[in-house]
Amino acid sequence: MNKSLFLDIKTTTETIDILFNHFLPPTLIESIPILEANNRVLAQDVCSQEDIPNFNRSTMDGYALNARDTFGASSSMPAYLNIAGDVLMGEATHLSLKSNEAARIPTGGMLPENANAVVMIEHTHEIDSKTLEVQKPVGVWENTVCIGQDIKKQSLLFPTSRLLRAYEIGALAAIGQTRVDVYQRLRVGIISTGDEIVPAHSLPGQGQVRDINSFIIGSKVLELGAVPNFYGIVQDRVEMIHDAIKACVSQNDVVLICGGSSVGARDFVIDAISSMGEILVHGVAMRPGKPTIIAKIEDKPVIGLPGHPASTAVVFLVLVQPLLAHLQHTTLSPGYLTATTSRNIPSQPGREDYVRVRIKPDPESSNSKYLAEPIFGPSGLIRPLFEANGLIKIPLDCEGLDKGEELPVMLM
Amino acid sequence: MNKSLFLDIKTTTETIDILFNHFLPPTLIESIPILEANNRVLAQDVCSQEDIPNFNRSTMDGYALNARDTFGASSSMPAYLNIAGDVLMGEATHLSLKSNEAARIPTGGMLPENANAVVMIEHTHEIDSKTLEVQKPVGVWENTVCIGQDIKKQSLLFPTSRLLRAYEIGALAAIGQTRVDVYQRLRVGIISTGDEIVPAHSLPGQGQVRDINSFIIGSKVLELGAVPNFYGIVQDRVEMIHDAIKACVSQNDVVLICGGSSVGARDFVIDAISSMGEILVHGVAMRPGKPTIIAKIEDKPVIGLPGHPASTAVVFLVLVQPLLAHLQHTTLSPGYLTATTSRNIPSQPGREDYVRVRIKPDPESSNSKYLAEPIFGPSGLIRPLFEANGLIKIPLDCEGLDKGEELPVMLM
Repeated sequence: MNKSLFLDIKTTTETIDILFNHFLPPTLIESIPILEANNRVLAQDVCSQEDIPNFNRSTMDGYALNARDTFGASSSMPAYLNIAGDVLMGEATHLSLKSNEAARIPTGGMLPENANAVVMIEHTHEIDSKTLEVQKPVGVWENTVCIGQDIKKQSLLFPTSRLLRAYEIGALAAIGQTRVDVYQRLRVGIISTGDEIVPAHSLPGQGQVRDINSFIIGSKVLELGAVPNFYGIVQDRVEMIHDAIKACVSQNDVVLICGGSSVGARDFVIDAISSMGEILVHGVAMRPGKPTIIAKIEDKPVIGLPGHPASTAVVFLVLVQPLLAHLQHTTLSPGYLTATTSRNIPSQPGREDYVRVRIKPDPESSNSKYLAEPIFGPSGLIRPLFEANGLIKIPLDCEGLDKGEELPVMLM
Repeated sequence: MNKSLFLDIKTTTETIDILFNHFLPPTLIESIPILEANNRVLAQDVCSQEDIPNFNRSTMDGYALNARDTFGASSSMPAYLNIAGDVLMGEATHLSLKSNEAARIPTGGMLPENANAVVMIEHTHEIDSKTLEVQKPVGVWENTVCIGQDIKKQSLLFPTSRLLRAYEIGALAAIGQTRVDVYQRLRVGIISTGDEIVPAHSLPGQGQVRDINSFIIGSKVLELGAVPNFYGIVQDRVEMIHDAIKACVSQNDVVLICGGSSVGARDFVIDAISSMGEILVHGVAMRPGKPTIIAKIEDKPVIGLPGHPASTAVVFLVLVQPLLAHLQHTTLSPGYLTATTSRNIPSQPGREDYVRVRIKPDPESSNSKYLAEPIFGPSGLIRPLFEANGLIKIPLDCEGLDKGEELPVMLM
């Protein structure tokens, strides 16, 4: 039997469901400095041990006072208060305001006892060093931040699985947590197969080509915050592929096999995988990418990618990227841009077509619209891949796109 | 004179123009392995020393032959060819086809001499081990990739300043270039000022707060591929700020000063900068972010950011991010998502308002539309910052947005 007949072909949606249902995110944890934690995922609940701020703080340059003493004040009927002193920046104040007293306060300064508002400097006038004229009333707690208003003591600040960005890291700094427990980086083993493949640093003889796929995949894995581990180029022999996969599975969370491009080479990969685990998907209704293999070995995902660079890249973007996000305890939000097709793009119903496009500003639009110009070319070439900056999906049941259709383009 | 009066306030567009016109990208170069070059910018022209591929290659499993010998073939009137032998994967073939001869060839195999096309296995039938029936004609060079078709020898593959992605890295691997000259990472010096600021690892007394801004800015700088260098927290004294800026300018390409939030603290920064270089912008028509300072010291940009975390973050996103991209020899393309405002958002004409929003799926839309829910709150708090995932710009001359307006949201 020709194993490339793909008797039970799956859609991309079915394939992603299978990946998500069969594989759980690994749970190994490491503690790292918060400055290195951008784009990492929390592996602990974070609670604050303190109120932030831990004092009532002014948000304006002005005068701390009791709001009651300004009620009814206007420029024609100002309120007059006694200036009791100055709040100094960064210092606890020991002032305690009596009725009709105010204290000079800078933005960020600590409110004195009995103050419950700050009037902005712009609405005041110092008659002399002891007397303040207030021309506008302020509400209770106006122009202030109260104790615990930002973050409450003992409250949950971030739950486990929160994706950390610069802003969460700022909040961790605010509560004094300078290290944080995050999930370890995902380890992705990469195997290249194919008798025609030689290492990138060597000079290929006739009939040979350099290993491109390891670099494309390795770069993308790094880009997604995971760690690529390379297992070199394995000859097209079932036992050698078997041994490479075995080592790779034991040392990684995910295994990606950049397949030889011939049917024979793919059969070797299928045979090797079949002897070690369960094949979940063999054949996906997409182009490029139909010969994709998904298997489960020792509860880990092993994915056979097609051999052509463009096919490998598309399958990575469409199927592997969401899997890696899932295994990193997060969801993927790839960038999309809305663009208009620059010409008709044919497609065969019965499969999803992924068309590489060049997104560029529409010269006929004044309103920063974009055109998507399809880039055709054999998927064995690298040029149509690096000339593209976007990927369009033509759905399963669609015979193609007309020129001028507006649609989302996945940024590559 | 109160230096915060901002007599010559600039728009954000004017400010970015000033930044781009005054500051050139640094040109220091380093050589790195291509696998580390994702998101780096080429500092050399890359030419290929070889044709890629360096042999005529099959893109299908099938039979190499001369296209002429299949002309007119059909399933009712097949062509019959003699099978001259097998092309082996990854090996030079020494076969030379005579008239009406074909050779078995795998995808990626080398075409024999005198072959100029490949017929797919699906359109053939082997009558016996010596005789091939071909049921469909092929065109000249059909199902092949010719010598140099992907990348031509001596041609320019990528010019200087090309941003490298996984696909460019794949192309570099294809031509055997495993190291590449790129521009060095941008060095960004970060100074915190403010008498109320204490280090994140310490316990603030009353009236004190931890340094949040260094972490937000440092994380964003790392995220953009630049190197943050921290110069600690500097007291609000002109001479101390002066000395910190001087050290920072000499050791970095860009200096960011996270300002104290009070008017007095800002005045110290202005005084220190004025004594060392030229102030280009003092006051930007945006909220938050109005007190932003941009100066030129020793031909390097020195930017004073406002002290509140939300203000610092917004100024970083709107002004500093494009500058860092420019200084990294690239252009910025921040992610945008189209969303609909969930409620009216007021704004004052005469300045750009930047409103933090939470983007979420619109529960009333079946078509994966998004709602942008504004998050209000004092810019001195960190919570409204980490609760947001998007930023909306309300233009200078606009009095606000109505509920239901569709607009682009910058992803945070």
